[in-house]
Amino acid sequence: MIDIVILAAGKGTRMRSNLPKVLQSLAGKPMLGHVLDQAVGLANARIHVIVGHGGESVQSYCEAYSLESGSSTPKIQCIYQQEQLGTGHAVQQSLPFLESGGKTLILYGDVPLTSAALLQRLVNLVDNNSLGLLTVELNDPTGYGRIIRDEHGAVARIVEQKDANEKQLKVKEVNTGIIAANTDDLLAWLPTLSNDNAQGELYLTDIIEIAVGAGRVIATEQPETEMEVMGVNNRAQQAQLERFVQQQRTQNLMEQGVCIADPTRVDIRGEVHCGQDVFIDINAVFIGNVELGKNVCIEPNCVVINTKIGDNVTIKANSHIEDAIIHGENEIGPFARIRPGTELESGAKIGNFVETKKSKIGEGSKVNHLSYIGDSEVGSGVNIGAGTITCNYDGANKFKTIIEDGAFIGSNSALVAPVTIGKEATVGAGSTITRDVPEQQLSVTRAKQRDFKDWVRPTKKS
Amino acid sequence: MIDIVILAAGKGTRMRSNLPKVLQSLAGKPMLGHVLDQAVGLANARIHVIVGHGGESVQSYCEAYSLESGSSTPKIQCIYQQEQLGTGHAVQQSLPFLESGGKTLILYGDVPLTSAALLQRLVNLVDNNSLGLLTVELNDPTGYGRIIRDEHGAVARIVEQKDANEKQLKVKEVNTGIIAANTDDLLAWLPTLSNDNAQGELYLTDIIEIAVGAGRVIATEQPETEMEVMGVNNRAQQAQLERFVQQQRTQNLMEQGVCIADPTRVDIRGEVHCGQDVFIDINAVFIGNVELGKNVCIEPNCVVINTKIGDNVTIKANSHIEDAIIHGENEIGPFARIRPGTELESGAKIGNFVETKKSKIGEGSKVNHLSYIGDSEVGSGVNIGAGTITCNYDGANKFKTIIEDGAFIGSNSALVAPVTIGKEATVGAGSTITRDVPEQQLSVTRAKQRDFKDWVRPTKKS
Amino acid sequence: MIDIVILAAGKGTRMRSNLPKVLQSLAGKPMLGHVLDQAVGLANARIHVIVGHGGESVQSYCEAYSLESGSSTPKIQCIYQQEQLGTGHAVQQSLPFLESGGKTLILYGDVPLTSAALLQRLVNLVDNNSLGLLTVELNDPTGYGRIIRDEHGAVARIVEQKDANEKQLKVKEVNTGIIAANTDDLLAWLPTLSNDNAQGELYLTDIIEIAVGAGRVIATEQPETEMEVMGVNNRAQQAQLERFVQQQRTQNLMEQGVCIADPTRVDIRGEVHCGQDVFIDINAVFIGNVELGKNVCIEPNCVVINTKIGDNVTIKANSHIEDAIIHGENEIGPFARIRPGTELESGAKIGNFVETKKSKIGEGSKVNHLSYIGDSEVGSGVNIGAGTITCNYDGANKFKTIIEDGAFIGSNSALVAPVTIGKEATVGAGSTITRDVPEQQLSVTRAKQRDFKDWVRPTKKS
Repeated sequence: MIDIVILAAGKGTRMRSNLPKVLQSLAGKPMLGHVLDQAVGLANARIHVIVGHGGESVQSYCEAYSLESGSSTPKIQCIYQQEQLGTGHAVQQSLPFLESGGKTLILYGDVPLTSAALLQRLVNLVDNNSLGLLTVELNDPTGYGRIIRDEHGAVARIVEQKDANEKQLKVKEVNTGIIAANTDDLLAWLPTLSNDNAQGELYLTDIIEIAVGAGRVIATEQPETEMEVMGVNNRAQQAQLERFVQQQRTQNLMEQGVCIADPTRVDIRGEVHCGQDVFIDINAVFIGNVELGKNVCIEPNCVVINTKIGDNVTIKANSHIEDAIIHGENEIGPFARIRPGTELESGAKIGNFVETKKSKIGEGSKVNHLSYIGDSEVGSGVNIGAGTITCNYDGANKFKTIIEDGAFIGSNSALVAPVTIGKEATVGAGSTITRDVPEQQLSVTRAKQRDFKDWVRPTKKS
Repeated sequence: MIDIVILAAGKGTRMRSNLPKVLQSLAGKPMLGHVLDQAVGLANARIHVIVGHGGESVQSYCEAYSLESGSSTPKIQCIYQQEQLGTGHAVQQSLPFLESGGKTLILYGDVPLTSAALLQRLVNLVDNNSLGLLTVELNDPTGYGRIIRDEHGAVARIVEQKDANEKQLKVKEVNTGIIAANTDDLLAWLPTLSNDNAQGELYLTDIIEIAVGAGRVIATEQPETEMEVMGVNNRAQQAQLERFVQQQRTQNLMEQGVCIADPTRVDIRGEVHCGQDVFIDINAVFIGNVELGKNVCIEPNCVVINTKIGDNVTIKANSHIEDAIIHGENEIGPFARIRPGTELESGAKIGNFVETKKSKIGEGSKVNHLSYIGDSEVGSGVNIGAGTITCNYDGANKFKTIIEDGAFIGSNSALVAPVTIGKEATVGAGSTITRDVPEQQLSVTRAKQRDFKDWVRPTKKS
Repeated sequence: MIDIVILAAGKGTRMRSNLPKVLQSLAGKPMLGHVLDQAVGLANARIHVIVGHGGESVQSYCEAYSLESGSSTPKIQCIYQQEQLGTGHAVQQSLPFLESGGKTLILYGDVPLTSAALLQRLVNLVDNNSLGLLTVELNDPTGYGRIIRDEHGAVARIVEQKDANEKQLKVKEVNTGIIAANTDDLLAWLPTLSNDNAQGELYLTDIIEIAVGAGRVIATEQPETEMEVMGVNNRAQQAQLERFVQQQRTQNLMEQGVCIADPTRVDIRGEVHCGQDVFIDINAVFIGNVELGKNVCIEPNCVVINTKIGDNVTIKANSHIEDAIIHGENEIGPFARIRPGTELESGAKIGNFVETKKSKIGEGSKVNHLSYIGDSEVGSGVNIGAGTITCNYDGANKFKTIIEDGAFIGSNSALVAPVTIGKEATVGAGSTITRDVPEQQLSVTRAKQRDFKDWVRPTKKS
């Protein structure tokens, strides 16, 4: 059993936010969510989150995370730290809940990018005689606790910046704060921490000295990049990590064969799965779960949210798509706004300045320009003219519009729902249709065209 | 009294532009404007701008700048330099206007990013016995005049690239050309400059040698970054400075707590003031004065110009907003085009493909799709259906549309102004309303729906 | 005569694509197209493309390239390499077609950015006694064949990474594979290549050793940047070269005087020619041939394809323009969608959410909002109101709409083509016009406005 203790009680003053720091977003998910992802990635884990500032929001998030993750996820327990008296104090709160005989891993809710594999390696370092410490080499170690090793290379202690002598200041290996240890060691050592220091706080780091004193070996692991152990204390660091995550994700897509016009101009806030020969042009933003089939082309400046797109679909520039299913062979946009509940059958076309919502549009049907299709069922082979509006709302209720296969809706028409346009029926341009139109019939509402020969144009008034 | 002389007479041939170089834009403002901002930031200043190429445009700009800045701004005087015979010649033009007994600071209209604080420090260096020179260390000093110091570290002279020996070429400290001096020194020295050089020009730099000869100390200041003293001679340098300014501005916003998705993809051409927990997504462009309240979210690809946005507003992707007031709790876009004179009361919603202009839209009112609302007053709780057009122009004059509280405008309606839709009145879908609609009444213009059973569809002609 | 042999038979497994590697796109054109551009840039060239994987597609592309380039382009011959047995084997396929007495240059379809000038210099190195080899200095030469020079600096041989000793591994000059040689030498040497190596392949590189053995001098040329000889083996390299090309192109535009807001956010996939004082804002994407006149301003997030834009035109944000001619003094967008076949005379204005297609719009005419103008001829001084739709399609055929000079089309009108609106005629708002409107006349189709005083609003149903 591994008990994982996640420190998530800090306020994050330097973020200058109302939101608890660990709930600040990274790649579309709270930082704590990334840490939980790592934690649940470890075998046999129980998760304890130490909460404090904004504790209720953090607890709510943890509960939502558990619910979403399903029953296979380890239990997540929130433990309130009423006063924030240092990292050692925070971990102390978890002691009553740790399982003797197991191992404990200590993580931080604001260090979001450590990989589960690295953490597993760290945990594996812990045996009866050792404690695992994650360290990192920094080009500029200023401000961090230096790892001081003895002549055999064993970790002797950690010296903080302010206490370090000239030689120690040159050490580039620093403490990340991420520790794995025998739970029984922590149970023994943590109550002995002293707050006899300038801040009057209990420092978790002090257990390293205790461990060495107790004859333990400090076994160390290092991340592949320092980004894996970088904490977020301000907006600049948040942005820096955001860019790093995005770079990793686009690199990952490119390794899968996705062609990306500019890897620095793609944002993936969730997961994107791509078929072969997908092309992603500049400024794509993907949110939630997005699936792109083979030969999908995403033109510039598109936002795609929780949407499944089939093969051979082109999403033209400046389109916005959310919670939709697009079956394949479709051409969407430019300037299309596909809203939740839209399902486009194969070959259906949505053109410019068209909004669809809670509507199914059949095979090969076209809504090419300036239309609003809401709460509708559109059959196959339908042509919907420019400027067509489905009037789905009477101010109190919403109603459905049904347009059957092969219908032709003349431009600038209003279809007042509930209404059905029959199979192969035609609606004349400019009509406001309030009664069903039977199959193959033409319906039109149109006043006579009247001509005024003696018309005098308005003139500019002063 | 500080006399500030700004050299702004150059043509800027390498910009390959019709516009005088100092009027080229940086972060939405002519470079000269940035220099004037610094100049007016100094205490007790009088400003003299030496103009030449495009002198009238430059003078017009200076006048506009003065007007806009208000009466507290120091006077800006433009002095014409008829021929451009070198920097020394340029400063000579200002001599008749300088005040004996004061100090003079010499700036350049194409060196836009020096901070006022740095310039103040430079001016403060000047005393009876000294002249202030702004120098900078460059990694690659090629092309610049090197600062040659004696064995005590005092500036001995400036050696130009072409005159420098091997040892001097290695000096990385170079002359920026920005000088502060006792005005009486300049009055004495400048007339003695010689044009006995390859270019036949008078060089301001020569006064350093004169000063040293006169036993003056050359006191130096250095900027924090070389960008502060970088001049713009071509489009690449203009773009480089533009990116530097933008980076500074986004960094500044992040320090205030603004969450920015990608700091390299935000453009601020003016000033942006933000409340707490503002989120700015990719490709935002802010122009002029923009205020964003608390919890404002700017989604991707939005342009916001001279607009005040209240708390809890979301500007969805691809929206364009100019000269508007948005009170709070609003949702705008995606694909909204809010034009000048729009005022949205709290909770008013503007949806996709909607244009508003010179219109006030009341609390909680909705214009969700494909509409044009111009020259209108819309009350609270109004619902304006998709495809509604206010017909505000008769070809000669513009008229107002008034839609009172709680009205419901059916989709695809045209409201021919001047017209008033009364409180809680309803307009039937597809109507063209030319007469006022009284309170609570339904008005509709609709021809009877006619059905043609024997309708034969058009067929493809050859 | 120069015979140019382009190796283009590889599959490009690491691209993970269905498309042959040499047809992968770079800056809007297959990589092979870039190589062909270089090849046709050389004097007196005949071009032989060795094809294999996807050979038919590659051959089709070569044929299309020839056709498009016109008769002055050298003949491009495709030679099938049935099995891919190494670079030496690939070049062997071309031997029957090379002209004795000439020179031969060997290029690679996946090394797209070598300049024609550099290749010409390489070819010029070849004389009776020499072979030309393109080499490059790499900071990190790992993986590449090192150029081993003797004590006189002459190339002695190429040592592959796996065969290199410690000293050789430190050599930073590496083989690019690009070779120019006397054709008779290649005819003599290539048949003697051996596949006695780990891969069992024939290596072109082996001819260097043969040449040295035959007493030839290996004359070398080097590119200005390593990007010129970088090959594309995966999507990351493709993206890297894409960014390099784009950077070159924006730099080139800036040298011509174009003002670019952010040089890292412009994409040119074709050619852009600019007049004086053009401003290009963020995220512009240019495709095909684009001409921008003097003082053209391209606002953020615009896509411009194969379009000619005259002087003093502003393309406002988020506009999409394809195959159009825009004469000058126009204001387009924001959110305009100009489709193929649009021609806008001087001063014509296209506003937001407007789509035009196959239409000519006359001098000073305005289509400001929410309209679709297709298959139309619009005269000068015309005002087309918001929400106007030209109904150009009856479900089977397309018809023309003609709107003569000075006409005024009221908002929310539908013009059912074929139809002509006469000179200075007026269409009343909300009309559906099916008959021609004579000059200066007003036509309107409008049902009487009916008012229902006792109207009871719908209520929310459960």
